[in-house]
Amino acid sequence: MTVQSPIAVLGGGSFGTALANLVAENGLPVRLWMRDPQQAETIRRERENPRYLKGIKVHAAVEATSDLQGAIQGCELILVALPSSALRQALAPIAPQLEGRFLVSTTKGIEAHSFMLMSEILAEIVPRARIGIISGPNLAREIAEHQLTATVVASEDEEVCRRVQAALHGRTFRVYASADRLGVELAGALKNVYAIIAGMAAALAMGENTRSMLITRALAEMTRFAVQRGANPITYLGLAGVGDLIVTCSSEKSRNYRVGHALGRGQTLDEAVAQIGETAEGVNTLRVLKEKADELGVYMPLVNGLYAILFEGRSLGQVIEALMGGEPKTDVDVADALFT
Amino acid sequence: MTVQSPIAVLGGGSFGTALANLVAENGLPVRLWMRDPQQAETIRRERENPRYLKGIKVHAAVEATSDLQGAIQGCELILVALPSSALRQALAPIAPQLEGRFLVSTTKGIEAHSFMLMSEILAEIVPRARIGIISGPNLAREIAEHQLTATVVASEDEEVCRRVQAALHGRTFRVYASADRLGVELAGALKNVYAIIAGMAAALAMGENTRSMLITRALAEMTRFAVQRGANPITYLGLAGVGDLIVTCSSEKSRNYRVGHALGRGQTLDEAVAQIGETAEGVNTLRVLKEKADELGVYMPLVNGLYAILFEGRSLGQVIEALMGGEPKTDVDVADALFT
Repeated sequence: MTVQSPIAVLGGGSFGTALANLVAENGLPVRLWMRDPQQAETIRRERENPRYLKGIKVHAAVEATSDLQGAIQGCELILVALPSSALRQALAPIAPQLEGRFLVSTTKGIEAHSFMLMSEILAEIVPRARIGIISGPNLAREIAEHQLTATVVASEDEEVCRRVQAALHGRTFRVYASADRLGVELAGALKNVYAIIAGMAAALAMGENTRSMLITRALAEMTRFAVQRGANPITYLGLAGVGDLIVTCSSEKSRNYRVGHALGRGQTLDEAVAQIGETAEGVNTLRVLKEKADELGVYMPLVNGLYAILFEGRSLGQVIEALMGGEPKTDVDVADALFT
Repeated sequence: MTVQSPIAVLGGGSFGTALANLVAENGLPVRLWMRDPQQAETIRRERENPRYLKGIKVHAAVEATSDLQGAIQGCELILVALPSSALRQALAPIAPQLEGRFLVSTTKGIEAHSFMLMSEILAEIVPRARIGIISGPNLAREIAEHQLTATVVASEDEEVCRRVQAALHGRTFRVYASADRLGVELAGALKNVYAIIAGMAAALAMGENTRSMLITRALAEMTRFAVQRGANPITYLGLAGVGDLIVTCSSEKSRNYRVGHALGRGQTLDEAVAQIGETAEGVNTLRVLKEKADELGVYMPLVNGLYAILFEGRSLGQVIEALMGGEPKTDVDVADALFT
């Protein structure tokens, strides 16, 4: 038997903690790094992460630490579950030590000025790392509660996919592999915009027909955008595409959904964000996505409509009228985008 | 101005009534036929269909009747909203009079012995009719309440699509056209099977991750089956595919969902059907679909799993174990099915 090198999970939020538990349950050594020594101490002492995953037992084999150097020592596989705003800064100091290792981002977001995805940032700061990402319909709490869950690991490097499957695949957590890193990662970032719209629709007491129409149209325009960037359209029929979109547009707890709900109740964006206490990722994504879609000439009516409400002073009523108006159309705009 | 010929809606259930209201709201003459003279009289007198659409006003211009000959007299466009079990029998006597007209089915189902879809039955009994269908994420009550809704009219005959759009498209009801009649109609029939599974998952208190995984996998196997039969895979990215599947798997009121819920609580199929009072369409579809999938060699693990529970005495636990077990896989089985 070979000795298994430990696996590091960077980031002590709900998702990082849930992933560390999965690794430990698979009988593999795992270190969970977080910046805050107090939080690490709490997890060591109480075997719980009360701030982010209250009520869930942290597996005895998960080694919580605030020592980043120590955490990555000897690890071949490192799962990066840091907030998008912290990722670049947190990893820059240890970048040279990460060269050659398997670096897998679980973070969803787009960097504003560069339009870079998280794995692209990893590749930039650690050029010789072997990069992958995880994305899918994955609410952290449900993973931690052993609800049956499936995710996608995506990398053009097959060995990255195999390593992640070996670390995380288990009885209640199923890991599918994909070679379409760009498509899977873009899906995870873009869907946050549509969670805002789902929240608005709920606040307006829109029904299942409307919700389903919105999700379907969201899927179409996400796919159009991603295909234009070079993604595989079929990714959007899968777990990381439509699967994650359904969860995101159904989960009332996400900040994006709650911002949308507040907007639907008539609040301004400033009021909504003030009430929720921090900016929702989807609002940032909306700005950069709108700009990029305009630049690329991709037709994204839902993005344009939400942008008009948030930043151009249009009313919800005006935007809905515009979306529902116009002449009858064919249902082939997706097909047009995919196969022309 | 030309005189607009009246439009007939056959079937006084919730969907037929909602459609008749849409036509009337568009200012067009419309007749709503139902077998039961009492029911027609109630609608004429009370302007409501209390049995199927309680609380919704039936538009003053909707002419309710139990006279089938009179209902279709002079109508170029006839919308057929009859139950799948009654369609063939109800139309056979007037088949010769239907020749040459626009006949559009709104009914979802598969005839057991023949594996024929409703529009195929129409085409068989009225060979020279111009055939189309309507399908999509369309809960009748929500349409009637003017919740924003989109549907798909599908026909290889473009004029059929135009006629339906002219009759039904309006401020809150959007009608998209598709040439893929087979794909759209199969989607509407197949999804009933997955509504049973969604009901089971809910009874077992499965979370959003699981629900989303099930819907995504359902979409993949529906698409595989339909493509094998000759449908366009892209239809399944649209309203009639994933859109309808989401609504069906979210709507707790459908008989299919309720049968699944009862099964998930540990009842037998007989007990579940006895409690709900009539057979759910999805149970019939499951039988014929399983047989056809085996015959065609299409891989449908969810269909096989549900069939094993309902008809082969397997427990839910065994089936879930089998579905979640096995080695890690790639997420490309959809792609394989679509592009090989």
